[in-house]
Amino acid sequence: MTTAMAEVSVVTASDILKNWQGHRRLTRKVIEVFPEDKLFSFSVGGMRPFSELAWEFIRMAVPIAEGVATGKWREFDMSKAAVTTKSELLRVWDEQTTRLDEVFAQIPANRFTDVDKAFGQWEGRGIDTIQYAIDNEIHHRGQVYVYLRALGIEPPPFWER
Amino acid sequence: MTTAMAEVSVVTASDILKNWQGHRRLTRKVIEVFPEDKLFSFSVGGMRPFSELAWEFIRMAVPIAEGVATGKWREFDMSKAAVTTKSELLRVWDEQTTRLDEVFAQIPANRFTDVDKAFGQWEGRGIDTIQYAIDNEIHHRGQVYVYLRALGIEPPPFWER
Repeated sequence: MTTAMAEVSVVTASDILKNWQGHRRLTRKVIEVFPEDKLFSFSVGGMRPFSELAWEFIRMAVPIAEGVATGKWREFDMSKAAVTTKSELLRVWDEQTTRLDEVFAQIPANRFTDVDKAFGQWEGRGIDTIQYAIDNEIHHRGQVYVYLRALGIEPPPFWER
Repeated sequence: MTTAMAEVSVVTASDILKNWQGHRRLTRKVIEVFPEDKLFSFSVGGMRPFSELAWEFIRMAVPIAEGVATGKWREFDMSKAAVTTKSELLRVWDEQTTRLDEVFAQIPANRFTDVDKAFGQWEGRGIDTIQYAIDNEIHHRGQVYVYLRALGIEPPPFWER
């Protein structure tokens, strides 16, 4: 790759947020179709139940956007995580969806490419930490597609966001 | 999000290729640890065996990069796909890794944001078609992590590329 090619800007902040929220909409659909009595318990191969993966997505999304926006890395308040029903989980999910739009819009331009240490542990550019959160959600949601198939349930199409 | 914020460029062509090849290196590690006698047959929940998913990644990667580069959408030559061993699959994988670097470097700057109809079917900007290929690989590889766990095998760490 020539230097000129390498430096062509191809993705805007808005594109990233759009892709992220598109994936989050798909994850929401997967929560909706997942049987409530299996959501907090069902597993294949000893892996975590879907509820724990969904909490991981929630704990990463807004806190990472906030950290990139402000340089302050605050853990998600897990006192909110004491939910035992699908509808409560979806309520938190939807709150975080709105909050993600708000926080993401406040990220200063330079913070996407500035290097920071996320949560004091993971060093990288803001955009790389954000992309990691998106990729991690896709990865674990792919795992949940197997849970659904193993339960005999058709997952929502991957391409519909 | 303000208009100014939305239009901040945060990802270069080089960043996209780096992330893609990083994910492809991880997929290669997953092929390496997958038992050869299960690669072409093992499934959970009636889903496709890993070999078929790996072929889907191969059929999307270079042909999509070529389509975005040239506007010509050519299917992968599946006469090359008659492989029955892990080492043959890895050989094709590595050829395509090299080829992807070459082809990606030839994508004209405007083609990332130009809208085209991939393989005459899927309309979108070049960058969106590329991102879809990356996301699709992450998604199905997440599925393969469950296959590995179900087989009692520790998958490679998701964060190591």
